[in-house]
Amino acid sequence: MSFWAGYPEVQRELTRVQHLLQLETAGPGGIISRALQDLSGRDAKLLRPGFVILAARIGNGGKDLTEGSIERAAAIEMLHLASLIHDDIVDGARTRRGGDSLHITLGTRRAVLAGDYLFARSFALFAKSGGQEGLELLTPSVARLVSSVIDESSGLDDPKNSPLPGDRPRFDLTPRRYLHRIVGKTALLFALSFHAGALEGGTPPEELTEPLRRLGYNLGVGFQIIDDLLDITGDPRKTGKPGGTDLRAGVVTLPLILAMQRDSGGILPELANQVRHARWRTTRARALEKIHHRLERCGALGETRSLAERYTRRAEREILRLPPGTDRDILQETTARLLRRSA
Amino acid sequence: MSFWAGYPEVQRELTRVQHLLQLETAGPGGIISRALQDLSGRDAKLLRPGFVILAARIGNGGKDLTEGSIERAAAIEMLHLASLIHDDIVDGARTRRGGDSLHITLGTRRAVLAGDYLFARSFALFAKSGGQEGLELLTPSVARLVSSVIDESSGLDDPKNSPLPGDRPRFDLTPRRYLHRIVGKTALLFALSFHAGALEGGTPPEELTEPLRRLGYNLGVGFQIIDDLLDITGDPRKTGKPGGTDLRAGVVTLPLILAMQRDSGGILPELANQVRHARWRTTRARALEKIHHRLERCGALGETRSLAERYTRRAEREILRLPPGTDRDILQETTARLLRRSA
Repeated sequence: MSFWAGYPEVQRELTRVQHLLQLETAGPGGIISRALQDLSGRDAKLLRPGFVILAARIGNGGKDLTEGSIERAAAIEMLHLASLIHDDIVDGARTRRGGDSLHITLGTRRAVLAGDYLFARSFALFAKSGGQEGLELLTPSVARLVSSVIDESSGLDDPKNSPLPGDRPRFDLTPRRYLHRIVGKTALLFALSFHAGALEGGTPPEELTEPLRRLGYNLGVGFQIIDDLLDITGDPRKTGKPGGTDLRAGVVTLPLILAMQRDSGGILPELANQVRHARWRTTRARALEKIHHRLERCGALGETRSLAERYTRRAEREILRLPPGTDRDILQETTARLLRRSA
Repeated sequence: MSFWAGYPEVQRELTRVQHLLQLETAGPGGIISRALQDLSGRDAKLLRPGFVILAARIGNGGKDLTEGSIERAAAIEMLHLASLIHDDIVDGARTRRGGDSLHITLGTRRAVLAGDYLFARSFALFAKSGGQEGLELLTPSVARLVSSVIDESSGLDDPKNSPLPGDRPRFDLTPRRYLHRIVGKTALLFALSFHAGALEGGTPPEELTEPLRRLGYNLGVGFQIIDDLLDITGDPRKTGKPGGTDLRAGVVTLPLILAMQRDSGGILPELANQVRHARWRTTRARALEKIHHRLERCGALGETRSLAERYTRRAEREILRLPPGTDRDILQETTARLLRRSA
């Protein structure tokens, strides 16, 4: 919760969300529950439930939240956790939130079931409190989320049966395709989080939900662009993540896409390959640094930053359409922290 | 569809369902769509969508079905397919519906995503046409379904990190626990299929949904008991399945549970172990045959059959509570075929 430190009104409600998460993850029992409770207990930003809470407070004028909003916040976090668990299987990622990934602690088979359980419970929880409107928002977003992961994973290596057509990093992606992908992967669930909060106290008025949804959408796109940028340029000591995780998973993001348009057929694919298959951390770091400099020189990083900046400003414009107050101020601060970060 | 051969009124609607399945599985594109379309196209009983259709026709007096019922039927079949895909990963089953399992054709990672996609789309489709009522029925059943698979899989071996507590076949299961498991695994989704059909033409009257739900529930329990029985006693040439698949996956079913209560500490666990780890098909077949005879002699098979018979009669009683007509007759015939089969 450390991300929300300094916002007691948000933290108080997040405690209720985490309590519900503990109850829900206790469901399957045994080692799967222990693993889920460990994962959901690890320090996470809890961005999505935080957004639900802020949107709900903006809707109800800063009052304590109904159980329904807490349920929707927990449901969205469970959905997020489920997708993380399965993504880590798909990417073969060994760590998550500073600990082992679930497919490492539980083995792949149990990790599949653990994700499925969270998936199903999150829908059940959302169905209980989100009503028809909530579900007609939630369910297509989730399908779109999975499609985006599938699209992204078209570049993954599959030990079981590679090489496969499209089973190589996609350097030919268009920026449009990249944006379509991150909208599905991140922005729709951000937008949904804000909308789910707006459902506090029944059907919300258009003039509240529209700016909230657009805020979530633009915040989500900007957030993902910067996340992908930092995976190449970020200082691991600051980000806390090893660099180049996308490339290692065979995922090509915006900076590389833009650079490829500038010097396609250049040595970027070769460097990316080195990052991906490097035996030693030092070899990988060196290749990643070369990529970093190439992208800087050809202007791809600058263009990426200014695109992120465009979405940041859009998000900030939407915030100003919301009723003024503490919660709006918190939204402004967090948006700035998320979209203007360098780590 | 061969299971429904001879029932043109059901087949006609199933064709609509399969058309929708083809559209839905086309979503992700690429090799995942091709694999999903291949799987959903393989000869399957299509029991659940068939139940939706029959329940809907009983509700509307045998008229052509609205698109909503077709969507709910497709959604339930997609849910079933998703769980089959993930179950095959969990059990390490290499074949499904007479072909390769998806984790064989696609590799585990893509098979996880393929299942997730069907999972998400089935909820979206159900949300569209099932409404709040439908979803409050569907979503907890799915969570319960996953829990049952988790419970069942407490006996699975996980190459990644076995031995684990509970990572051995559970011979100490009580019949009660077994029933609880198959209710979650099969009966609730059968009950849901009938209820989903009853939603044809808006909110159905109690006197229609109640017998339909109870029919589905009892049919589901009886069906699963017989399925588990045939896995031990069935003639592979008739069932089309290799025997002992449950034991090989470390899953202990009713006949063995009852036999263990009779001679616990006997050689059954040892024989089960032979079935499970046999190097050669012949060794496995011999061990399975020994188990078969032991279960027959100690009366465990007889007791299993009579329990299945009890649920069959309950199902048949519920059918008689439904309005008479062709569709009720079809239900009677199919119930008898499913619960009085020997293969």
